[in-house]
Amino acid sequence: MKTVITYGTYDLFHIGHLNLLKRAKALGDYLIVAVSSDDFNKQKGKVCEIKDTDRMEIVKAIRYVDKVIPETSWDQKIDDVKKYNVDVFVMGDDWKGKFDFLKDYCEVVYLPRTEGISTTMLKEEIGNK
Amino acid sequence: MKTVITYGTYDLFHIGHLNLLKRAKALGDYLIVAVSSDDFNKQKGKVCEIKDTDRMEIVKAIRYVDKVIPETSWDQKIDDVKKYNVDVFVMGDDWKGKFDFLKDYCEVVYLPRTEGISTTMLKEEIGNK
Repeated sequence: MKTVITYGTYDLFHIGHLNLLKRAKALGDYLIVAVSSDDFNKQKGKVCEIKDTDRMEIVKAIRYVDKVIPETSWDQKIDDVKKYNVDVFVMGDDWKGKFDFLKDYCEVVYLPRTEGISTTMLKEEIGNK
Repeated sequence: MKTVITYGTYDLFHIGHLNLLKRAKALGDYLIVAVSSDDFNKQKGKVCEIKDTDRMEIVKAIRYVDKVIPETSWDQKIDDVKKYNVDVFVMGDDWKGKFDFLKDYCEVVYLPRTEGISTTMLKEEIGNK
């Protein structure tokens, strides 16, 4: 069984999130998604519209997702990869190169993001109405 | 097999949408979700943030949902109930009583909405930031 992992915030769940999860799952058989906790976002100075428990529930309900775990620090990735015997680490290509240090532990894939949509764009568009 | 149907817009997919879909599915074995088309919303004077094809894709990806169809008019409900041999018609209780005319064709259930969240609330909150 090939295990894939990806990390994200998934605030205002949109088609870009869905496309990435679908493509990530297609790289293996079992998809783990780490969803950033509200506390971790606070450390990063990031404010979410939707609270972490709800963001996790929604990701969990997506049929391509097999397991959801919380992301609570920048440093947990190597531990997660080891703990869950991860074969493929996947991120959107806005992170290209940033996680190459994981290549010592598993395959690292950066997938193209869906053009024309992001949570930031959505918030701006709604804010401008 | 017990077939359930529900109707909605599912703009900015949130935990309230998810809870309703989950509870609707629990009323039967096969859940059909009719997602309002952009043209139908236009007729109603309703503007969505997310286009219909994306709203449909997201609803389709929810593990409780078995089939997605477009909602294109107010009048299609009786036809849908007959066509898909629907046993239970489900809506949020903000519509209480409005679809009782369907009781001639199937069971009609109004489920409580999740408190504290709606697409309108989300848009207002984001707009006020």
